[in-house]
Amino acid sequence: MRQVAVIGAGDTKFGELWDSSFRQLGIEAGLAALQDAGVGSRSIDALYIGNMDAGRLVEQEHLGALLADYAGLSRDHIPAVRVEAAEASGALALHQAWQAVASGMYDIVVVGGAEKMTDVSDADAVRVRCAGIDQEWEGEVGATDIALHALMARRHMLDYGTTREQMAAVAVKNHANGSKNPKAHYRNTITADAVLKATPVATPFGVLDCAPVSDGAAALVLCPADKAKRFSEHPVRISGIGHACDTIALSSRRDICTMDAVVRAVKKGYHMARITPKDIDVVETHDTTTFTEICTIEDLLLVEKGAAGKMALDGATAIDGKIPVNPSGGLKSRGMPLGAIGVAQVVELVRQLRGKAEGRQVPNARTGMALNIGGTGGTACVTILEAMN
Amino acid sequence: MRQVAVIGAGDTKFGELWDSSFRQLGIEAGLAALQDAGVGSRSIDALYIGNMDAGRLVEQEHLGALLADYAGLSRDHIPAVRVEAAEASGALALHQAWQAVASGMYDIVVVGGAEKMTDVSDADAVRVRCAGIDQEWEGEVGATDIALHALMARRHMLDYGTTREQMAAVAVKNHANGSKNPKAHYRNTITADAVLKATPVATPFGVLDCAPVSDGAAALVLCPADKAKRFSEHPVRISGIGHACDTIALSSRRDICTMDAVVRAVKKGYHMARITPKDIDVVETHDTTTFTEICTIEDLLLVEKGAAGKMALDGATAIDGKIPVNPSGGLKSRGMPLGAIGVAQVVELVRQLRGKAEGRQVPNARTGMALNIGGTGGTACVTILEAMN
Repeated sequence: MRQVAVIGAGDTKFGELWDSSFRQLGIEAGLAALQDAGVGSRSIDALYIGNMDAGRLVEQEHLGALLADYAGLSRDHIPAVRVEAAEASGALALHQAWQAVASGMYDIVVVGGAEKMTDVSDADAVRVRCAGIDQEWEGEVGATDIALHALMARRHMLDYGTTREQMAAVAVKNHANGSKNPKAHYRNTITADAVLKATPVATPFGVLDCAPVSDGAAALVLCPADKAKRFSEHPVRISGIGHACDTIALSSRRDICTMDAVVRAVKKGYHMARITPKDIDVVETHDTTTFTEICTIEDLLLVEKGAAGKMALDGATAIDGKIPVNPSGGLKSRGMPLGAIGVAQVVELVRQLRGKAEGRQVPNARTGMALNIGGTGGTACVTILEAMN
Repeated sequence: MRQVAVIGAGDTKFGELWDSSFRQLGIEAGLAALQDAGVGSRSIDALYIGNMDAGRLVEQEHLGALLADYAGLSRDHIPAVRVEAAEASGALALHQAWQAVASGMYDIVVVGGAEKMTDVSDADAVRVRCAGIDQEWEGEVGATDIALHALMARRHMLDYGTTREQMAAVAVKNHANGSKNPKAHYRNTITADAVLKATPVATPFGVLDCAPVSDGAAALVLCPADKAKRFSEHPVRISGIGHACDTIALSSRRDICTMDAVVRAVKKGYHMARITPKDIDVVETHDTTTFTEICTIEDLLLVEKGAAGKMALDGATAIDGKIPVNPSGGLKSRGMPLGAIGVAQVVELVRQLRGKAEGRQVPNARTGMALNIGGTGGTACVTILEAMN
């Protein structure tokens, strides 16, 4: 299979975007990515869209055809595919797009992730988020996604001594990073004290531990790596991908505070990229909650199990730390538009690897890794990127 | 890219299946396909799922992980992907699964299509079907998918002289075929007179012109063609695929009674399969309405534009006709479980090409073609199959 590169990246602001519809968000991100790549829409061979639940959020399915149409691609009858894996929809769409280019099926492929969450009530948006957990065995008895993450966190506290102060440090760090990201949903800095005293959501989490309900979209343009320099001065190679699933219900897991799907996916990613964890310069991970960042950087094998909480408190995951995590602000501060997350993480990594993440640049970043999960870890998608110059 | 074969095919009964949940339907079809292939679940490398709108129909997303889990695949952390393109979700999932095998990424891949429509009211099921049309420009002003198909039909009647009697002949033929299919939703035969006098739905259609709201699932097992004989006595090769999109809104089309996406997709399919329309022995097409069968067999280039209505009335599309269409009973009689359709069509073709479609076998069928569309033709997926022995 061929090597694949990212030659264009774009995103919208994340937030409560009352003035923008689903299709407008998708088109805005797509055009930004095409402009970045210097590619016209008539050069596109295929479109892949990641979205979690536009059916309930905006009563629209057939999202590939919809966005292809409004991007002007229908005149050439360009094929479009929508991919869904709950909150991991964006990265999974990217992986399918990667496969389409790597296989030789298509040359220039656009992948977009988009979600418009604020056209429904907050209560309905939360119900939609819960469609990523097992409705029949978890949702119907009253569990929410955050409540299940809270169970995981409590077990992690018991098994590894992880503390609330360590979790709060994640929120403080991600807001500090997000304050430097003009596209972030929340750009305010916060204190550990504020996190610890915030309104409770599900023990041990307060509201400042939890990622928000956001609108937003992001897009990437892919092409074969050997053609990338024709389009971009600073292309980024997709050097490794890994995709794995686990039981959708948390109660069926071997261990509720280790995401086995993440471990499996990242091992595939490292193997394909022919690197080890110590080669990673910057990470974007899926911080549904502050705890989720701690848990996932362990399961990505960046530190030993149980050691990530201390790292957060020590500043090792800050932009100038040993392993910078979520320089974009992460889901907590940048925002959490479900189907857009996985694509947006890679947009941030492309900026970092190009040295263009102004105000939040990780020094000398050459290799980046993104983790996008669905539900409580039923799906894990790892993407590893390397600067090509 | 590698040649790909179907080595197993299975489906559930289609109908109002009050006793079965979404996941049960998916698992039943998947196990039937695996049993047919003689493959154990531990041999599977990946799972692809086609589904239109389980988010609204059963409040569940994350469908890949869900079905992988309940199929016992989560113990091996098998990757699972859900694909959506309205009613074309099934065939598009098949095309992505084909790509996964053709590229060399995976060897044994299961693709399933499933929809559980009867857990909501009929009115809500109709609203879900309308998520395949342009909600902002068509749905919100009161159009339904059937109403838009009716506009297309009226234009076709005006331009080509197509008659109600010709449309009724499609329904009569499809019920006659479905009466011989033990898995069909409606197994009763009907008369042209009954179709013409049925309760009006949207002029010119009565209720017997329209495909029903159904539950159901279907599944296929794919592997590289050069390994197919290890698993199956009668493998079927996927010799051509074509996928194209058009404007999602009918009003933006060049011609509302020609589906340009179908024409584009089938040309790709014929080109890849290196055949011409006259080589096709049996067709499964997407008869959302009786008119849709007429329109699509024209756009598949099987007859000249405007000639298909007469063919239906003359019996040329019957099982013993010149071009047998929808021997399964089609959407009209077999049923229309949205995301399952495209996979179920190929299950029928596999049976036909194996010579195992008891009671409805097309004589000497060697090459078959399936067309699965989304909305009013915003997505078209063509799949061409050839018997390997």
